[in-house]
Amino acid sequence: MNILFIMYDQLRFDYLSCAGHPHLHTPNFDRVAAQGVRFSNAYVQSPVCGSSRMSYYTGRYPSSHGAQWNGFPLRVGEVTIGDHLRKLGMNSWIIGKTHMKADAEGMARLGLSADSEIGARQAECGFDNWCRDDGLWGQGPDGFYDEKRSPYNEYLKSKGYLSENPWADFANAGITDEQIASGWMFRNADQPANIREEDSETPWLTSETIRFVDQTDGPWLAHVSFIKPHWPYIVPAPYNDMYGPNHVPAALRHDVERENPHPVYGAYMNNKIANAFQRDEVRQKVIPAYMGLIKQCDDQLGRLLDHLEATGKMDDTMIVLTSDHGDYLGDHWLGEKDMFHEQSVKVPMIVFDPRKEADRTRGTVCDALIESIDLAATFVETAGGSVPDHIIEGRSLLPWLHGETPEWREYAISEYDFSATPQAVALGLEPRDARLFMVFDGRYKLIHTAADFRPMLFDLKTDPEEFYDLGDSAEHAAVRDKLYAHLHEWGLRMSQRVTRSEEDIRNSRGRSGRKGILPFLYDGTEVPEELIQFYRGPAPAKYTD
Amino acid sequence: MNILFIMYDQLRFDYLSCAGHPHLHTPNFDRVAAQGVRFSNAYVQSPVCGSSRMSYYTGRYPSSHGAQWNGFPLRVGEVTIGDHLRKLGMNSWIIGKTHMKADAEGMARLGLSADSEIGARQAECGFDNWCRDDGLWGQGPDGFYDEKRSPYNEYLKSKGYLSENPWADFANAGITDEQIASGWMFRNADQPANIREEDSETPWLTSETIRFVDQTDGPWLAHVSFIKPHWPYIVPAPYNDMYGPNHVPAALRHDVERENPHPVYGAYMNNKIANAFQRDEVRQKVIPAYMGLIKQCDDQLGRLLDHLEATGKMDDTMIVLTSDHGDYLGDHWLGEKDMFHEQSVKVPMIVFDPRKEADRTRGTVCDALIESIDLAATFVETAGGSVPDHIIEGRSLLPWLHGETPEWREYAISEYDFSATPQAVALGLEPRDARLFMVFDGRYKLIHTAADFRPMLFDLKTDPEEFYDLGDSAEHAAVRDKLYAHLHEWGLRMSQRVTRSEEDIRNSRGRSGRKGILPFLYDGTEVPEELIQFYRGPAPAKYTD
Repeated sequence: MNILFIMYDQLRFDYLSCAGHPHLHTPNFDRVAAQGVRFSNAYVQSPVCGSSRMSYYTGRYPSSHGAQWNGFPLRVGEVTIGDHLRKLGMNSWIIGKTHMKADAEGMARLGLSADSEIGARQAECGFDNWCRDDGLWGQGPDGFYDEKRSPYNEYLKSKGYLSENPWADFANAGITDEQIASGWMFRNADQPANIREEDSETPWLTSETIRFVDQTDGPWLAHVSFIKPHWPYIVPAPYNDMYGPNHVPAALRHDVERENPHPVYGAYMNNKIANAFQRDEVRQKVIPAYMGLIKQCDDQLGRLLDHLEATGKMDDTMIVLTSDHGDYLGDHWLGEKDMFHEQSVKVPMIVFDPRKEADRTRGTVCDALIESIDLAATFVETAGGSVPDHIIEGRSLLPWLHGETPEWREYAISEYDFSATPQAVALGLEPRDARLFMVFDGRYKLIHTAADFRPMLFDLKTDPEEFYDLGDSAEHAAVRDKLYAHLHEWGLRMSQRVTRSEEDIRNSRGRSGRKGILPFLYDGTEVPEELIQFYRGPAPAKYTD
Repeated sequence: MNILFIMYDQLRFDYLSCAGHPHLHTPNFDRVAAQGVRFSNAYVQSPVCGSSRMSYYTGRYPSSHGAQWNGFPLRVGEVTIGDHLRKLGMNSWIIGKTHMKADAEGMARLGLSADSEIGARQAECGFDNWCRDDGLWGQGPDGFYDEKRSPYNEYLKSKGYLSENPWADFANAGITDEQIASGWMFRNADQPANIREEDSETPWLTSETIRFVDQTDGPWLAHVSFIKPHWPYIVPAPYNDMYGPNHVPAALRHDVERENPHPVYGAYMNNKIANAFQRDEVRQKVIPAYMGLIKQCDDQLGRLLDHLEATGKMDDTMIVLTSDHGDYLGDHWLGEKDMFHEQSVKVPMIVFDPRKEADRTRGTVCDALIESIDLAATFVETAGGSVPDHIIEGRSLLPWLHGETPEWREYAISEYDFSATPQAVALGLEPRDARLFMVFDGRYKLIHTAADFRPMLFDLKTDPEEFYDLGDSAEHAAVRDKLYAHLHEWGLRMSQRVTRSEEDIRNSRGRSGRKGILPFLYDGTEVPEELIQFYRGPAPAKYTD
């Protein structure tokens, strides 16, 4: 059995036709959904790339693995999917983006070189590196955002795209007159990227994936991680003009959201990204490009699925389609992700299990509360292991996939550390106070802040659009207490006892007596002779001076 | 500046004359207290050896470092005092007991051999090993409790104490007729151990310490960690008959404690150890031996202090005297430690700082709420560093030692994981539910259980003996709410973001724009030209087919 763990970056849960999008037709996502299960209430553990991904890779909450924002290194020794699966005879490979930053200081402290196999896996969050490319090759006066080597830029250069940074100058830019028309500027989002469609990022990574599948013996897990539809919002022809302003839905926002907003939400509504997406011309330029990028992802997914079918690999390959977080696209007066409205924290989660045990559930939708950390547990079970629940905090989805209805969690947790952002500065917060916690029980969504602010609260039953913040509503005090009780229970969870499993402990109980630890005897008659034989043997000589 | 970090095992806070013991005279502990500060409200982070020590060595709570009970390995890569101080040019050495269990699985995963210098430090919780001896060489039908080599047993053999396990047969046993009179049996606690006093454990380790001090160049931290006055309760002459039944105080216990006790407390009151200490003949045999062991520790401390004075080392050596937890000795119907009454969770904490900044506080008592994790922070500052408060959760005591009155914590936390104990079995608890949390604000002490039991609550102002459990007292609901609010805040603390300091984050804020990450531009006029120069250079050639 192999596992294709496919992640799209910043793909909103509702921008797929199987999820009900009115204009965007995604027959290949729908094709996997028709053969598998679509989880319609799947939440990421953090609505930001790096932290969300480290939770996917460790099966642990951000507060447990500690890599709580982009560029915060994952501590050396933190156990990952790769570590768990290797023990089960399955290798894990990265093809594309991880957003992992290695714990260089920790590795140095332990004498681990990134050149060694073990060091390299530490540096790649447990994966072996087939073709890692984090896909964000921004460049500014202080240099490149990402210091690593870009296989994609090297590919483009080999194809004759002549520039220091063809990712920026061709793949993510159009061309007008004498000027680069950079995809960083929303004005250019409707331009065709200045690149052959087959050389753009999504087809390139799909080709790398097909090459991997053809050349690699199983069992394997391949984390195929696309940078798109993440910004810069620009796409090559013909995808740049498949959609237009008439396909852009009205922004899901309400003036009531701007009346006395929660301070953190208010700070986000006033940032540059939000201000941009509050402009209609931005949404009308960006959203059609975003849809075009997704359409290209869907076509390339079809290409991959066709290849798997043609080579018979659909029969022994689990396929997972998901994302690291969503995209506000102007909803709630916001751009990007970061907060906990559904557009940001809910993700697509489609799982195809080829085994006959899954036949009963093909083409169904499951509305259980799923956390992204559940995939790590699912992969361990799929590889034939049992979930080490003293390390992995998620739960296997196999029971759902096989038509069972397990006892399940009452609430989902998501976290957001915004300590490094301008919003934290604007609010005058110390880094450790710039943290948010979401607890959602399927109806009510509470957002707690580590700083001294009131909570936010939404009732998704009476207010599915999440416009009305009930954080200080008197009649919802009992609801807030219930959600806080969940959050506090979670806060005291067992998360770091990673060196002793529950089973180890059960088996160890009461053994010390048989190893001669007997701190409770008066005269020895309390225990069987065999336990104290060593303590009442024939007397050795009395010492003599 | 050097640091002598001296720990006694299972030394009760009130079994020192400077702490008011009516019969036990400890002039050498008092001598350090007279030159330093005695902290009269110092609490360990867990009332059990291994977990408490890992908190001392990491400066972190048990839930943060994960080694929550004896024999639970400290996860590989967890940062220790040794790691922090080495960066500051100070080496840390272990002389005696640590109760550390290495994370062998984690070390293997990272390819760390215990033979390597780095691997050895991982295996010794960050210390270099001068003379480690965990001092508990119990032996039973399943073999030795501790598989490691015992330098002390080797010393005894070299001195002619002929036996497979002279620790058990001589140092911790008397001799009667033809029989070993094992110290494991309380009946024998008044016997003289069958060993020359100078060959017993405390003098031996004191001699090792003097050898270290004479042979080692500074700056160093030496963790001198005595096994005594920990059980087996037996001591060589003349200490075995310095104290008798007339020096044994009445047990601090009350029948009200046995009326409807909290289930966990009830289970501990019914265990073998408690049942033994509920017998007067046990207390009258054991407590004089316990006092004799402490008296011997005091005499040996005097020997060490005299040597430091004679060699001028008192002038540049900080001295800390503390313990890993207390000993009930029959109080509250209990033996051993494990629960959170003062006899178990409060420890002696005496700190001598030779620097003139500390002259103002010599001989004073400080009643601030101290946590054992504060020492790690104190040592880092003493070595000239600033406390990495994203890793070390304790706070430096130097302000107190130097006569300042800093803003200080409102509450102390202690934890107890009893998942591996017979009490958890008796209560039918799953390992992860067998956890206790204490929160103490200086007056009220709340004990929360992860299992579905009511809390315990004591008011130490009206009930300093902690006899009356107010856990379900209606009029104390507000007090419980206040303490739970502290506990819940603590549960959501930042504890795992160990790869990014608060300062790193402050310095990183808002830098991504200068590295070309600009996801909010409409046309580029929003930012200085220098930020986007790379995105509007002269156009590269349009690609051609």
